[in-house]
Formats: sequence, structure tokens, C-alpha cells
Amino acid sequence: MIYLDHNATTPCDPVVLEEMKKWFTEMFFNPSSIYTASQRAKEAVEDARKKVARLLDASSEEIIFTSGGTESNNIAIIGTALLLKNRGNHIITSLIEHHAVLNVCKFLEKNMGFQVTYLPVDKYGIVDPDDVRKAINDRTILISIMAANNEIGTIEPIEQIGKIAKENNVVFHCDGVQVAGKIPVSVKKLNVDFFSLSGHKFYGPKGIGALYVRKGVKFKPVFYGGHQEKGLRPGTENVPAIVGLGKACEIAEEKMAQDSSKEKILRDELEKKLVERIPEIIVNGHPEKRLYNTLNICVKYVEGESMLLHLDFEGICASSGSACTSGSLEPSHVLLALGIPPEVAHGSLRFSLGRSNTMADIERTADVLPEIVEKLRKMSPFWNKK
Amino acid sequence: MIYLDHNATTPCDPVVLEEMKKWFTEMFFNPSSIYTASQRAKEAVEDARKKVARLLDASSEEIIFTSGGTESNNIAIIGTALLLKNRGNHIITSLIEHHAVLNVCKFLEKNMGFQVTYLPVDKYGIVDPDDVRKAINDRTILISIMAANNEIGTIEPIEQIGKIAKENNVVFHCDGVQVAGKIPVSVKKLNVDFFSLSGHKFYGPKGIGALYVRKGVKFKPVFYGGHQEKGLRPGTENVPAIVGLGKACEIAEEKMAQDSSKEKILRDELEKKLVERIPEIIVNGHPEKRLYNTLNICVKYVEGESMLLHLDFEGICASSGSACTSGSLEPSHVLLALGIPPEVAHGSLRFSLGRSNTMADIERTADVLPEIVEKLRKMSPFWNKK
Repeated sequence: MIYLDHNATTPCDPVVLEEMKKWFTEMFFNPSSIYTASQRAKEAVEDARKKVARLLDASSEEIIFTSGGTESNNIAIIGTALLLKNRGNHIITSLIEHHAVLNVCKFLEKNMGFQVTYLPVDKYGIVDPDDVRKAINDRTILISIMAANNEIGTIEPIEQIGKIAKENNVVFHCDGVQVAGKIPVSVKKLNVDFFSLSGHKFYGPKGIGALYVRKGVKFKPVFYGGHQEKGLRPGTENVPAIVGLGKACEIAEEKMAQDSSKEKILRDELEKKLVERIPEIIVNGHPEKRLYNTLNICVKYVEGESMLLHLDFEGICASSGSACTSGSLEPSHVLLALGIPPEVAHGSLRFSLGRSNTMADIERTADVLPEIVEKLRKMSPFWNKK
Repeated sequence: MIYLDHNATTPCDPVVLEEMKKWFTEMFFNPSSIYTASQRAKEAVEDARKKVARLLDASSEEIIFTSGGTESNNIAIIGTALLLKNRGNHIITSLIEHHAVLNVCKFLEKNMGFQVTYLPVDKYGIVDPDDVRKAINDRTILISIMAANNEIGTIEPIEQIGKIAKENNVVFHCDGVQVAGKIPVSVKKLNVDFFSLSGHKFYGPKGIGALYVRKGVKFKPVFYGGHQEKGLRPGTENVPAIVGLGKACEIAEEKMAQDSSKEKILRDELEKKLVERIPEIIVNGHPEKRLYNTLNICVKYVEGESMLLHLDFEGICASSGSACTSGSLEPSHVLLALGIPPEVAHGSLRFSLGRSNTMADIERTADVLPEIVEKLRKMSPFWNKK
């Protein structure tokens, strides 16, 4: 099997799982209890918090553990809206955010009297910082822009947007789920107030994420209960997963440079070969400002889902966009925002590479896909008519 | 070490962990993807859903996976409040609920214009169904009463309360975190609309829970994002933990009868011995309608925390109440609601037994605690003055 869907999820690193094990069975204690054994669980949580903080160039007091990227995005945005609703009701985001941001904004519009500006992007998927500046008004309380897009990999100018947010005294949330563990991140340098990450996107466990909250920045909790995570995210700490997330952060720091150079070579090779071998395809996303592991293409006159099924038959796992929207008949909102016509957007394929991929994987994929496309196009009335 | 704090958390059953492993590393796929491998992950999730449903006598379509008991309680209560706020703004709960219910109610009072009736309990901690009936008015939209109390183990008359809720057309949520996996539960028989459970309270993993939602009952999601869990609880499914929860449900069904009879004998023996050996102690909770594993006592003229530290020194893990409020200087809200004076409530100890406990554990605890109490009382000005 050739797995080329790492932006959807990654395998948990066996070293991460090994590190987690004893916290399930042997050292299973509730970190909130007061006996010695439970204090070791508490220390493990705090040790992991330091590791997450280090990955982001933050302090450990600025890290809150959550159940994943979706929760991190939700509590940052809803929590800010709840806290600042009397100061203003305007939020700025972009058209190409993940649904864990877009759908939260829509909820706030529909149910809490918020107004949301959905900024357009250029043909590469880049948000213009000047558009952010122009959209700010005296009711603007929050800007939420992703660090890199999950479908096309385009990396946004977060540092510049963060500077604008700061100058205008507006809270800035960045959905960093696709960059954390992949490229170096300094929340200080990026000028963000909130930064979301998810363990399973970089070889950590599922069901665990973190939210960076800049020191001094407040938000209202969304869940209520015990005192865990300073009352900002109650519930018994998921110790094994927290330990696993910490380990995944540590490993990411070690391997990032090597992963990125290797995966970029493979990704570029896949891109080159597919462009050479398949007529009428478009490569989506920015040519350079793009995650080194991501290749998103539109194959004209073919349905993405049909290609995926044929790739699957050949043992190749890829996606047509976000896993969170798969099964939907709508074309990708990200591709539409780039100005790609719906009929072309329907022919999208996303390959997202990871640590285990080899040049052999790339060669096989580049051999198999052109044949699939040719076969499907032969059956396509649109291809035959053109 | 003798672990007597199973109501705080339980060790993950090694069989559960074994079942989870391959879903971390080998079968790590995102269930929302469309290739064959990911469909196996989806099937594993659906298989686990069936097992959770079977434990509760529900249908699998009625089960939603969450990150734990706190989230289950929060989304049931907040989600109902958001949906029905135009129909009414009154909620009925009890004074002895877990903070994951009480603090949600306080949030709704403070921020969303809700009125909450906090019902008293009798000296055993039992909510009178007649009090529930009398508290219902034409603005009542929700009743939330726990199945059994986490601190004292008292089992509430859920079936009768459910009947009253049904007759009055009020939504009924039951926090079942302390009973699920411990005693047989039939959500049908209990007449509940929502029922919360948490994996780590019955030898499953932490960070995973479920919410039973009766067919036809609606609520507004609290988080927004992808389409997972019918859009009611978005975020990539935590496959390993879901599989683990399913396995824990299966094991609980098998072992429940045996666990309960064994633990009841041990708990009764501990209770008998402590009452015999320590003068001036009170046993809290109902004499019969009580979880078979729970013993909560108040030792007069001694601080609970001091006893816990001495027990810890002897390798015995217990608690003074809920782990979620440990560290707080306030006496337990549950014990105060029973009418216990604050100075007596400060001397509380909770022993909660589990599968691994033996009669030797009980004998040692019953030997050690009286000595600790005697030593501490010798230093207590209140004891010496009386």
C-alpha cells in the first residue's frame, strides 16, 4: 500500500505509542488526585506541555490541551466571541479556512448576532494582508486565518497579518493544524494570540490537540466542569495522549529538517512526472509558498472520486480534498475560492506525503495515475466532445 | 500499592489496550477517507458504537462519541439550552451533581438568561421525584439528574424522574458516568433522553466518552466543523480510543455481575471494620441504594487531606471526594447538601473499589487507617477539647 494522505491523518509513530503505553495501564492515575502516584501523572502532563511549548516557541503556561484541532479552533473562536461580544461583533476570516473555523463563524453569524468578513484569496490561495487591514473596523474583535491550507498547502503570510492585528488591537487566531510539526513555528515571531494544533497530523495520537494562548490573552471556556487546564478545558486529563503528543512534538523537532527536504524532493518529482504525463491538468496552490508535502491537482474532464477509487484499487491512498468533507457532492470550497470552475474543481486530487514515502511510491503513483486518467477520459463525454 | 480510588479513574484493561494498538500504527486511517483501508477504520468505529449501545440497551444510531464525560454532559445540556431557549429558560438539576453539570448550569444562568432550580436531597443524597414534579413549570425545558453520585455512591431514582419528565414533555439528561459499566443500565427503562458515560471510569481509555441521544431528540452542536458524528460532534474520530471504549463496554457486560458481588463484599467489610475500629465516624450515602464499590466516610475532628497524605505514605490511594475538585479548600458540596456540617465534611474520605482489589487490601486499609486517625486526633485541639 502507498499512503499519500498524510494531511488527513498520519500513523502514530511507534516510538510515540511505546511512550504512551505505561500511562494507560501501569501509571493510569488521575493527575488531579493528591497521592504520590497521581503526581507522577501530573508531572508527565507538565513535561508534555513543555515539549508542545518548545515546538511553538511558547511558554508552557501558554499551552492548553484539547481533544484535537477542531476543539482548539472552536474554543479559541467561540471563547473570544463570548468574552468580547460587548466590545464588538465583527470577525475576519478567509474563504479557504477549514470547516472547523468556517462553520464556527457561520454559527456565530446565525445565532449570536456576529458579522463575519470572509476574505477572498488570490489564484494561489494567498490572503492579502492589506485586505485584512481594510476589513478591520471598530467592531472587529477577532481575525482567524490558517497557517497553511489543508487542501492545497498554500502557506499564508501569518507574520504580516499578525502585525496588522497587533497594530489594531484585534485578537488573532491561527489554525496551525497543517503546519505544526511540519515547519518551524515561532508563535512570538508570528504575532498570534491563539494557535491550534492537532496530534494526529504529525505522527502523534488522535483525540489530542493543543491551543496556544498568548500570556495575558483571555477567553471564555466553552465547556464547564472541573478545574483542569485552569478551568479553561475541564475533564480528566487524557494522560497517555498528552504524553504521546509531547513525544510527537519532540520527534518532529528532531526530524523536521530531514523530513522536509526528503518529502519536498519526492513531492516535486511526483508533480513533475504527473504534469509531464497527463495532459490538461492544473497544479493548485502557490508554486513556492506551499507545504513541502502537498500536491493538489485538478485533472480536467475526470471526477476526483473516480480517480480515487481506481487509485485505491491499485493500493494507493489519496484524497480529493479534505477528509472532513469527503462524501460531499459539493466541489471544494477552497478550489472555488481560487477561481477554479466547479466542473474542473470536481476533478481534484490531493497527494500529501509523509515520512515513510519513498521514491518507489512516487514512481508507481506517477505510472498508475496517467493510465487511470486515460481510461476514465475515454469514458467521459466531455473529454470526447472537446 | 493499594488503589482505592476507582471513581476517580481506573487502569485501562490490558485487553482493551491490546485491542487499541493496531489502530494507532497499522490501521491508523481517517475513517472519513474513501479508500478501502479507511473503511476498515470506519467499520471499527461502528462496531464499537454497537458495543456501547448494547451496554446501555440503546440502538447504535443513538450513540455519539465525545472526548469524555465532561463533554457529554456539556453538549447535552448546552445543546438542549441552545435549541430550546425560545421555548423556555428553566432547568432543573440537583445540588449534588458533578461540576460538569453544576458549572454548566451556572454558566447558562449567568450568560444566557436561564433560571436553574437546584433541588435539595435527603440525608442519604436522594432526590425526591416529587420535588422534580413540583419544580416543573411551563418554561422548564430540561432536567439533569445523575444516575449515581461520584462521591457518596447514592443511586438516584432515575426511572421515576424519567417518567415525570416524559409526562411533562421535558427533556431529561442523566449523567451516568459513575454507573455505566458498573451496574446494568437500560436507557429505555430509565426513560432518559440523554445519558453520559466516560471510558476511563470503567477500565477503558481516557479522553473518550459517549452520549446517548434518544432517537428523535435533537440538540444544537456546541462545536462546529466536519460532518463526523452526524455533525453533532465534529473532529477526526479518535479511532483507537473508540475501539477501546467498545472493548471496555464488552468486558464490563461480561464481568459486571462478578465485579459487583466481589466488590460489594470487600466494600462492606471495609465499612464494617472502619465503623468498628474508629470512634465517631459517619458513613455517607444511602445504606442500600449505593454503588457497590463506594464507601464515603467522615472522620470527625480530622482533616481528610491529612488522612490521605498518611494513607499515601502507607501506599494506599484514596480521595477526599471528587478528583475534579481536589486541591480546593471548600468542603464537598455533596456532603454539605446532605446536611453535614462543614467542619465534619472536611474530614471526608472516599474509598472506591475496583476489579483488582483483594481482601488483603481491605484488611491492610482497615488496619492502617484507625492508627492514622488516632495519631491525627492526638494532635487535634478539637478532639482533645471535647
